[in-house]
Amino acid sequence: MALKKIRAVQFGLGPIGIECMKWILKKPGYKLVGAIDIDPAKIGKSLDTIMGEKTKTGIVVSDDPKAVFAKTKPDIVLHTTQSSLKKVFPQLELIIKAGINVVSSTEELLLPDLQNPTLAKKIDLLAKKHGVSVLGTGVNPGFVMDTLPLCLSSMCLEIQSISVRRELDAGKRRLPLQKKVGSCLSAAEFQALKKQNKIGHVGLRESLELILKGLGWKADKVVETLDPVVADRKLTTEYFTIDKGRVCGIKHVIRALKSKKQVVTLDLRMYVGAPESFDLVEIDGTPPIKCRFTGGIQGDKATVAALVNSAPRVVSAAPGLLTMKDLKLPLGFDPRIVS
Amino acid sequence: MALKKIRAVQFGLGPIGIECMKWILKKPGYKLVGAIDIDPAKIGKSLDTIMGEKTKTGIVVSDDPKAVFAKTKPDIVLHTTQSSLKKVFPQLELIIKAGINVVSSTEELLLPDLQNPTLAKKIDLLAKKHGVSVLGTGVNPGFVMDTLPLCLSSMCLEIQSISVRRELDAGKRRLPLQKKVGSCLSAAEFQALKKQNKIGHVGLRESLELILKGLGWKADKVVETLDPVVADRKLTTEYFTIDKGRVCGIKHVIRALKSKKQVVTLDLRMYVGAPESFDLVEIDGTPPIKCRFTGGIQGDKATVAALVNSAPRVVSAAPGLLTMKDLKLPLGFDPRIVS
Repeated sequence: MALKKIRAVQFGLGPIGIECMKWILKKPGYKLVGAIDIDPAKIGKSLDTIMGEKTKTGIVVSDDPKAVFAKTKPDIVLHTTQSSLKKVFPQLELIIKAGINVVSSTEELLLPDLQNPTLAKKIDLLAKKHGVSVLGTGVNPGFVMDTLPLCLSSMCLEIQSISVRRELDAGKRRLPLQKKVGSCLSAAEFQALKKQNKIGHVGLRESLELILKGLGWKADKVVETLDPVVADRKLTTEYFTIDKGRVCGIKHVIRALKSKKQVVTLDLRMYVGAPESFDLVEIDGTPPIKCRFTGGIQGDKATVAALVNSAPRVVSAAPGLLTMKDLKLPLGFDPRIVS
Repeated sequence: MALKKIRAVQFGLGPIGIECMKWILKKPGYKLVGAIDIDPAKIGKSLDTIMGEKTKTGIVVSDDPKAVFAKTKPDIVLHTTQSSLKKVFPQLELIIKAGINVVSSTEELLLPDLQNPTLAKKIDLLAKKHGVSVLGTGVNPGFVMDTLPLCLSSMCLEIQSISVRRELDAGKRRLPLQKKVGSCLSAAEFQALKKQNKIGHVGLRESLELILKGLGWKADKVVETLDPVVADRKLTTEYFTIDKGRVCGIKHVIRALKSKKQVVTLDLRMYVGAPESFDLVEIDGTPPIKCRFTGGIQGDKATVAALVNSAPRVVSAAPGLLTMKDLKLPLGFDPRIVS
């Protein structure tokens, strides 16, 4: 069989996008053919300058997706721009209409049916019309709190409940994450942001619903709580110091209830000063399953892996809007062959 | 969408087959329509008598697959007879030629290419000709030492090596397993059986090769070792007592080497008196992953779950001979809808 490289365009050159490109360049199965961003500081610049080190792609960053697609004819776009489906829809529409598959880190795209069934339907029809596949994925949402527990549930004959706890020390992560979890805020500031829906993990509800959908369950009620974690001592990270009593992170929990029993619980704690990062998946079922990841699955790298590793699966999938449960087993292979 | 039950025939009424039927009868998405076995003690008998309790299927056990298939028109056969692909091939051929999908616990069917590429090709062509899908699966091989590490590898950008260790206390399992691991044998008896290929775990090599294939890796060398675990004290199970110095189980290890480095290691220890059952998956990669299953994934129940839960995926898959890496994400859903 002839080896055919997957031609990829990177759409969105934030930290995740830059990391995606680094690995696309490294993996023999890929060829990076274009880079798109809206940042005036990047447009027209040489990608090699932005990437630094010894990158020699000759690619110039463009803000004109149509022109890039027409010129480079990619197999897939790795899309890493925003969390909101509504906001990224025009970008997705451009990609799909150009007849290109897309794998995206947009959290709401994990299960777009949930927030916006009309838009989801539109994407699905559009993708089918143009013969391409669209997938939203990542580490969370996309794996730890949805795909992974679903995969483990395949070993169970009966399931009473599933719970996932992900706890991570935000102090060891990059600055945007430390800020995202509300570090240094007062309790009042946290609550104000919460009211405006400007703090908390995006995608928790999507993960929960993907599990329910995967298991064929309907919940009577879904309860979501978001609370600040408050520093019980002075905390210092690479970037700043959090005084005792100020916010150092979030505790974001979502529960699905059926007949007043918790059937799915996703408990996410991201805060500076967490004594240990870990992921814990527990299935109360036949047989029961209890699985713990020492150190947790490291977020930033794993999100990039999810995108890069999904690409060959998305390229060869049947056209339409996909979710992780509709895709073939995710795996970390080196995609040298597009079938 | 109309609910359509999956019509299933059980082929092989050993302990795993009986347990499969128990769950098929329990799950609303299934309808058990037939039961096949070659045991003269079972043929012609009422399945309800064999199953006991309150089973009311009206099914009579048959040794005539053709007649059962013609009469019951099943969507799938759950096949649980033997480990050897060569031995079960005539059974598979009958099923496929009747135009019926099959999910099987035959260990060598996990990756039939390995032991018998000619037969694998034949099954694949036959399945495609008759528009059906064929899958071999289970807990091990089928999940813990192959599908699961592959799934976890999707979170990694680079992988140096993968190792899985599965340790289980055979003393807490059913009698056939306690015997299978060589309990009570002398060291000499163990070695004699080993020479005849009559002891050891079937499917370890298949698991290893499925991982290699999934990752797109080629090993330079595969090294397999099988050793007895010897009782260091008198051990008593529900069924027998093992004297000190006699065999109480196996340590079966397989390693794939590349450039003299171990890239995949599967280490399986099943013995009476193991202090703790557990599964441990470790990926030396970017990011690294370390995941431990307290108590391990319980074998007998999980194998039945793997078969029962895979059935809807197999029914709706594209025709041909499948492996777990070609199937959509395994999950424990309640299969009420055949799409």
